[in-house]
Amino acid sequence: MKIIVLGGDGFCGWPTSLKLAGAGHQVTIVDNLSRRGIDLALSSGSLTEIASVHDRIAAARQHVGDVCHENTDIAKDHAALRDLIAGVMPDAVIQFAEQRAAPYSMIGDSERRYTVDNNITGTHNLCSALVDIKPDTHLVHLGTMGVYGYSREFGKIPEGYLDIEIKSTRQDTQILYPANPGSIYHMTKCLDQLLFQFYNKNWGLRVTDLHQGIVWGVETDETRLDPRLINRFDYDGVFGTVLNRFISQAVNDVPLTVYGTGGQSRAFIHIADSARCLQLAVENPPEPGERPRIFNQVSEVRSVRNLADMLADQWGAGIRYVTNPRKELPENELEVENAGLQSLGFKPTLLNNRLIEDVRFIADATRKNFNADNVLSSPRW
Amino acid sequence: MKIIVLGGDGFCGWPTSLKLAGAGHQVTIVDNLSRRGIDLALSSGSLTEIASVHDRIAAARQHVGDVCHENTDIAKDHAALRDLIAGVMPDAVIQFAEQRAAPYSMIGDSERRYTVDNNITGTHNLCSALVDIKPDTHLVHLGTMGVYGYSREFGKIPEGYLDIEIKSTRQDTQILYPANPGSIYHMTKCLDQLLFQFYNKNWGLRVTDLHQGIVWGVETDETRLDPRLINRFDYDGVFGTVLNRFISQAVNDVPLTVYGTGGQSRAFIHIADSARCLQLAVENPPEPGERPRIFNQVSEVRSVRNLADMLADQWGAGIRYVTNPRKELPENELEVENAGLQSLGFKPTLLNNRLIEDVRFIADATRKNFNADNVLSSPRW
Repeated sequence: MKIIVLGGDGFCGWPTSLKLAGAGHQVTIVDNLSRRGIDLALSSGSLTEIASVHDRIAAARQHVGDVCHENTDIAKDHAALRDLIAGVMPDAVIQFAEQRAAPYSMIGDSERRYTVDNNITGTHNLCSALVDIKPDTHLVHLGTMGVYGYSREFGKIPEGYLDIEIKSTRQDTQILYPANPGSIYHMTKCLDQLLFQFYNKNWGLRVTDLHQGIVWGVETDETRLDPRLINRFDYDGVFGTVLNRFISQAVNDVPLTVYGTGGQSRAFIHIADSARCLQLAVENPPEPGERPRIFNQVSEVRSVRNLADMLADQWGAGIRYVTNPRKELPENELEVENAGLQSLGFKPTLLNNRLIEDVRFIADATRKNFNADNVLSSPRW
Repeated sequence: MKIIVLGGDGFCGWPTSLKLAGAGHQVTIVDNLSRRGIDLALSSGSLTEIASVHDRIAAARQHVGDVCHENTDIAKDHAALRDLIAGVMPDAVIQFAEQRAAPYSMIGDSERRYTVDNNITGTHNLCSALVDIKPDTHLVHLGTMGVYGYSREFGKIPEGYLDIEIKSTRQDTQILYPANPGSIYHMTKCLDQLLFQFYNKNWGLRVTDLHQGIVWGVETDETRLDPRLINRFDYDGVFGTVLNRFISQAVNDVPLTVYGTGGQSRAFIHIADSARCLQLAVENPPEPGERPRIFNQVSEVRSVRNLADMLADQWGAGIRYVTNPRKELPENELEVENAGLQSLGFKPTLLNNRLIEDVRFIADATRKNFNADNVLSSPRW
């Protein structure tokens, strides 16, 4: 297949691009390197030392497969995006090119606006270009489990659609799960769902929306093949996901900083599983005429406290409870359906089987860049 | 009250600004005159001859009250918007500054993108500025009945929120009515709802969202006071609303062009009622902490065929059925709750009591500018 990976230089985009190229697909990465730019602005950065995009592509072509890179801002330059689609005529486009950190989106006016403008304009430019230029393209989008919110009011979280009865008519129906985002970032993923719903209804656009859990880990089978292929590993309070923040603290002998009580239950997925799920989604497009297909891209549910306890037990880390900078339920139960991707062949990697391997990798690879203060850089909201 | 009216030079914005100024409020109109620019681009325009914004403001200050105008693009110049809010420190901001024509939003890629970018970026810039600068401001937004769609599946359309039972837990709850837009324009109003939901949840932003029916008519008590105050009257297939298109045809002895069977039932409201409802909404803000207040701003439900028949009976117009350019149900029933604004004092003007008066006004005021071809300029979708 010919696949365009928008945002293919990022934490999820890069290993996914390698996974797809390794599977024999022709991959065009489109990335304006905004994430590397934000590193500079935040005075933070990846614990792993990532190669330049030029060196990454050279190494990928040497060891993995057919990958190239275009530096384009799809939110700001819709004409270039259209030219690119018309040039490649892709079978699938994966949309990773959204600002992806909830804390970043909550820093202030500038970051709120950047997140909305970049994510919505970019994704809408893509939808609009596709229906004009190659309407049978499969659009694969990274959503988030955060679109659902974390209340248990609606029971086990289904894959995108909720069965309800309308009280006034006593009629049963199925609706897009009611949006309940917890940050501007999560909100943009809720808006995206409505874009897809309408482009699907009016033009038959084929969409798979993957509501991903919190990603952890750093290595995949492909990133291991050459040091220049190493993936980024964020540990700061803005872009670092919770388990990766904990891992960075554990290997540097700093107590793990748990927000609030740690009773927040969340769904998790390893980065290698994430890349594998993307491959499965791309290789199994929805039928023409099918409504947007929504899968929960998650491996297992854990509480934040439980993650901290695992690291304390297995690595001897200390734990420190800090004031929660976020507005969220202090404690919650969570149960998540994830049958869709499993029906396509996904076999989840569980934390018990992989966590220590990743901790050892980070301990070996990255100790020297760690700045303990960066882990607590989250804005309050 | 100090009120900013974004988009205050437009078809609904202008009479609303006059209504508020006439009621003693201090009104700052913010408008980049984009609607006048689109007239030029589409080679169409108002049947009434509207004065320049300069002359409008002069006449309004002479006859009506305290009105001024700032030429600012709130989607493109967020800094100017922030300065404006900080300068005025408004009690309320009314957001009319969204591209408001479904057919315009469906012309092509450029218009789709313009509608999403202008509407979402503009409304989000406003939300983001308000929570920083004056978080207790009441944001009054023009939504549309089109957010609900026109299926009868969910029974009588409530005001924004739907009572449901979750099948899996058998629990009763109330959700934002599931979005079912019929155009890119309508879709943007669905996205807006999620912006308001989140800004209300996280920052307590006070919002009234008015899901307006199809507006008809042209005159209000205030626009009558001076020829320079006359409101615009669009009759073309892109910006003209259905009943105003019919009126323009009736007074020019051209058969009324009904899309499809005319069995589409829609909610309607007269422009003078619209301005009155805005006044009521502004003067009755939600309580602090209240969820976004949603009212259906409609006077009565009619089928398109029924409107055509009324004009045929009362004015002797002919009727011609043409292929429907839109994707919509060919026929539908519709029942709409509108108790909210009535509880604040709104008394709907009914078509039976007002239609002929408006037809006569248009017949007198505007016959000479009419171009029969413009009425059929809708794009197909």
